[in-house]
Order: sequence, then structure tokens, then C-alpha cells
Amino acid sequence: MSSKGLLLNIRLDAERKAEAFRSLFPDRRIVNYGHEDVDDLAGLTYAVVWSHEHGLLARMPDLEVIFSLGAGVDHVLSDPNLPDVPLVRFVDANLTGRMVEWVTLQVLIHLRRQREYDTLQRKREWHELDAPAAHEVRVGIMGLGELGTACLEVLKPLGFQLNGWSRSRKTIAGVTCFSGDSELDSFLGSTDILVSLLPYTAETHGILNRSLFEKLAKDGALGGPVVINAGRGKSQVDTDIVSCLEDGTLTGVSLDVFENEPLAASSPLWGFENVIVTPHMAAVSEANALSNHVANQIRRYEAGEELEHVVEKTRGY
Amino acid sequence: MSSKGLLLNIRLDAERKAEAFRSLFPDRRIVNYGHEDVDDLAGLTYAVVWSHEHGLLARMPDLEVIFSLGAGVDHVLSDPNLPDVPLVRFVDANLTGRMVEWVTLQVLIHLRRQREYDTLQRKREWHELDAPAAHEVRVGIMGLGELGTACLEVLKPLGFQLNGWSRSRKTIAGVTCFSGDSELDSFLGSTDILVSLLPYTAETHGILNRSLFEKLAKDGALGGPVVINAGRGKSQVDTDIVSCLEDGTLTGVSLDVFENEPLAASSPLWGFENVIVTPHMAAVSEANALSNHVANQIRRYEAGEELEHVVEKTRGY
Repeated sequence: MSSKGLLLNIRLDAERKAEAFRSLFPDRRIVNYGHEDVDDLAGLTYAVVWSHEHGLLARMPDLEVIFSLGAGVDHVLSDPNLPDVPLVRFVDANLTGRMVEWVTLQVLIHLRRQREYDTLQRKREWHELDAPAAHEVRVGIMGLGELGTACLEVLKPLGFQLNGWSRSRKTIAGVTCFSGDSELDSFLGSTDILVSLLPYTAETHGILNRSLFEKLAKDGALGGPVVINAGRGKSQVDTDIVSCLEDGTLTGVSLDVFENEPLAASSPLWGFENVIVTPHMAAVSEANALSNHVANQIRRYEAGEELEHVVEKTRGY
Repeated sequence: MSSKGLLLNIRLDAERKAEAFRSLFPDRRIVNYGHEDVDDLAGLTYAVVWSHEHGLLARMPDLEVIFSLGAGVDHVLSDPNLPDVPLVRFVDANLTGRMVEWVTLQVLIHLRRQREYDTLQRKREWHELDAPAAHEVRVGIMGLGELGTACLEVLKPLGFQLNGWSRSRKTIAGVTCFSGDSELDSFLGSTDILVSLLPYTAETHGILNRSLFEKLAKDGALGGPVVINAGRGKSQVDTDIVSCLEDGTLTGVSLDVFENEPLAASSPLWGFENVIVTPHMAAVSEANALSNHVANQIRRYEAGEELEHVVEKTRGY
């Protein structure tokens, strides 16, 4: 048995994921923490975590690399006793693809007024609604990393006018790119459908709030701004979204993430016709894709190659 | 005033469309038939029609060209007294774009189980459903004309496995193309989501029926076949769709067209959670796009150039 074992501390679907690791690493010790009794964490070199028990990683004397189960790593960085070892985030084509599917679906639901047609269907009413074409509508993506740029590649052939905003300047063909604080207002003022794919950092905490929503374009073809958040729930202010829907500052919203998850049954967000709520499922990590990603990085690491997708901890992504 | 006038016989939104023609042809006679009294049809050279009054065109002594208001022309060809003059169908980027939006939206609704999430939202339940990724799902498009090929260009970057079927063989990069009757069963057997964009002809009458649905792939990642029809309602058998939904032959359906429109309030199709009904709005002709298209063809015709998009009447499209 190899001495370099793995500790898993995963919330969702932990046993199925542990099984995938066991079959990829048949001769290593695999600890599915929280699902089996374990005292001695010595000899466990790698930690694979999602919303792990804070303090746990500091108790691993032989820890060399931490793997985040998602593209976001705020759930790891929030541990006050985080050991100073490389942190690798999860990047795979499947996760990116799932996000593109979800974002494209939500953009089109709002463009084609699908929720209003759903209501008409329940009333058995045959009635056509006016709706602008994609080329009359400006979609603005906040966050131009892997996920944001992949979304743009599908929104482009649909004919949308495309804007992008990121902290550092990007250049993307067919996309008007804005960057930094100084260009945020111009970006918002020329955006009808805002899609946030921002990571969660100190700077993006609560950034999707009333003050930002009020800067979105008011004169657009959709009759008012739409906000779609598939990034992180803590980047948004749920109560501001509700009040902006109530006073017409926003005309439509799609949320896969929330300040507190699961979203409480008492939240008014569930009840709006023009708000689509999904349970943080836009881009979930498949058991096999995850374990293959980790196995691939462990192979590189043990062969003396550089780890990929290592997080800059001070930046937060 | 030019002697070459236009007769319009349009059902929906006729006055707004007539206004668009009047501003493009200020010095020609424009007759908005059915909305104004008119006896003498002499001097009217062009007819612009949608579901026109059968026999009307035969009463136009100076008719030289007929323009269909849509991409489909079955509503024109069904006139038993159709004069033997060129029939031009409507093609414009906007109409194509609208169809791509609608088809992409419907494919993604079924892929991501949006209707089931809508139901969970109404119950305020936070609950994740399993759903395959696009790359695990085979979309098959019947009809590889302007609309079908444009849909493929957006479905491709989403990662779907793509099949196409047409009467005559086509070659499209990244798409497995089938053709003719002999390859229809193979096409259906390797298709999870069937999208019909077929024109209405004698050969496509009622083609979307139980016998065809039973040949669709049963072993797919979606758990059963999905059918999406944005072509023509007379290509489908509504009662077969209902019975195939009831016995599980089909697991999801999206329909923009119906055997009889508007769809009767008594139709069971309205009532299924996994059936999306829209009121023949997938791709509507905008007043300006339509009048510009007609004006452009009239300009060509009067300059002695060849008309574009002329229908082969025996073929039916």
C-alpha cells in the first residue's frame, strides 16, 4: 500500500464519490471523513474537500496538497487554521459545460418570456407576447474566467450583443470588454441581462446589491434589467433583489446561489413569476470527473511536475 | 403613382404591417385586403399573403409574384385556384435567429429538467435532480434547411451529440447526417431529443406519429425520448403525442405548432408538466423585416434580376 493516502471531507453524495476514489487508488488509504471512525490522520498526504470541518486540515501532519471539489474555493479559504500548502481548484470541461447550459437556458427563458408563457399554458390561453430578438439585447458577463468566456462562446452565435467585465483587462473577439472599478458603471449602463460568474472574495462580498442594480440599463429592449447569478450566493444581497423586484428596478432574476443555502422556505424569492430559483445545481461536480481530475494532479505532483489550477490565496481564486 | 400595386392579405397584425409597406412604397397603391373595401384588383402586381382567402389570388388579373409571409408556404399552396406565378418565401436572419432561440431554449428546458424545477419552486422545495450533461445527449434535427442548420450551429458549442435527417443528403461538419426513407429508422434510433423543422408537404403530413415516436432511442441519458416541433402542426398527430406521453413512449414534448390553431382549451396537451406549449410564436415575421424583404425582391424583379427564395411548387418548399 502506498504511504500517500487521501482524506475526503465532502458534504454531498460522499459515499459515491469515495467509491470513485477507491477504484482509482486501490492501493492507497482512503478516509471518508465524517462517514467512518478515524483518529489517526498521519500518512494522509492529500485532502479533497467541500465545506470541510474547519480545523480538520490543520490536524493532518503529512498534508501536502488540498483539492477543492468546486471551481470556487471560498469554502476552503474561510478556514482560519488553513495549512500553508498548495490549494488546487476543480476545473473540468464537464463542469464548465454544465454552467454554460444553465446560463444559456436562463438567458433564453428571460428573452423569450418563458415563465409568462408557462402561466398562460396553465390558464390554457393562446396568446402571443411581444419579445425582442437576441440581437436587440445586451448580455453582460461579470467574471471572465473559464466559465464566463465559455458562456460567451454560446451566446455569440445566438446573436446577443455581448459585454464583459473583469478585474483585469481581457480581450475577447466580438465582446466589448470593461475592466476594474473605473469601468464598472459603463459596463452596467450598457447591460440588459447581467450574468454574474464572479468568485467569492472580500471584494465581491455583497456586490450584487441595489446600488449596482440601479446602474443597469433601463431603456433596453426587455423593458427593464434582468440579473442572473450562478457565481456565489454571498456576492448577492437577497433582500435587495426582493425589493428591486417589488419596485420594478429589476424585471427578471435567475438564481442558482443564495446568501444562505438551502434557501429558506420562507424566502419571498420562491414566489415571483419572473424569478427562477434552482438549488445550486447549475454546475455540479460529477463523481468521476472529480476523481479523475484529482488523480491526474496527484500523478503530476508525484512525477515532479507542476500542479495545475493552483489558487492564489491572497487573490482568492 | 407607380402602376405596380401591392395587395396584402395577412391575418396577424395586418394594420401595422400595412403601415410598414406604405412607408416603403409611398407612391404605389397598397390594398390591405379584408381591412378596407375594394372591388377592383386590377393594377395590383404583387400579393403578400399569410393564410389568404382561397380564390382571391385568381381574381388578380395583373398578379406577377406572390410573397409568403413565412418560411413555410403550405398555406399558399393549399389554394386550389393558385395562379401560376413565382411564389417567394420569407427568409431573413431575424426569423432564423428567433427559431434558433426557441429551439435552443426548449432543448435546454428538457436537458436541465426546468419544468420539474419550476414545480419544486412552487412547492418551495430545495432538491437537486440528476440530469445528464449535453455531451451525453443526442439531438436529432429533421429538416436541414436554413433553420435546421442554424440551430445546429448553436447546439454544437453546447456540446450535444448531433444528428440530422433530410430528404436529400447533406454534409455538415460535426453532425452525423442521415437521408431519405432508408436511413430514417437509424436516425431515430440514435436520437434522444428529436427536433422537427420540416416543411409541410404531402410527405410530411402526420409524419410525427406513434409509429415514428416508438423508433426513437429508449436507452438514452434522459430516460426516454423528447420531441420538439417548431415546423408545421399538420406534420404531427396531436392524439398520438398525448397517448405516447400517457404510456411513457415520450418523456417530454415542446410544441409551437398544432394540427388546429389556436389549440383548443380542451386539449390535454396544455395540462402535462413535461409538455411546453407556445402559441406559434417561435419564429414570427417582424413587420419591418418582412416589408424590407419584399421591397428588396421587388427591386430585384423590376431591375430584371432573378427573384431569390422562389419555391419549387411540386416539392412544396
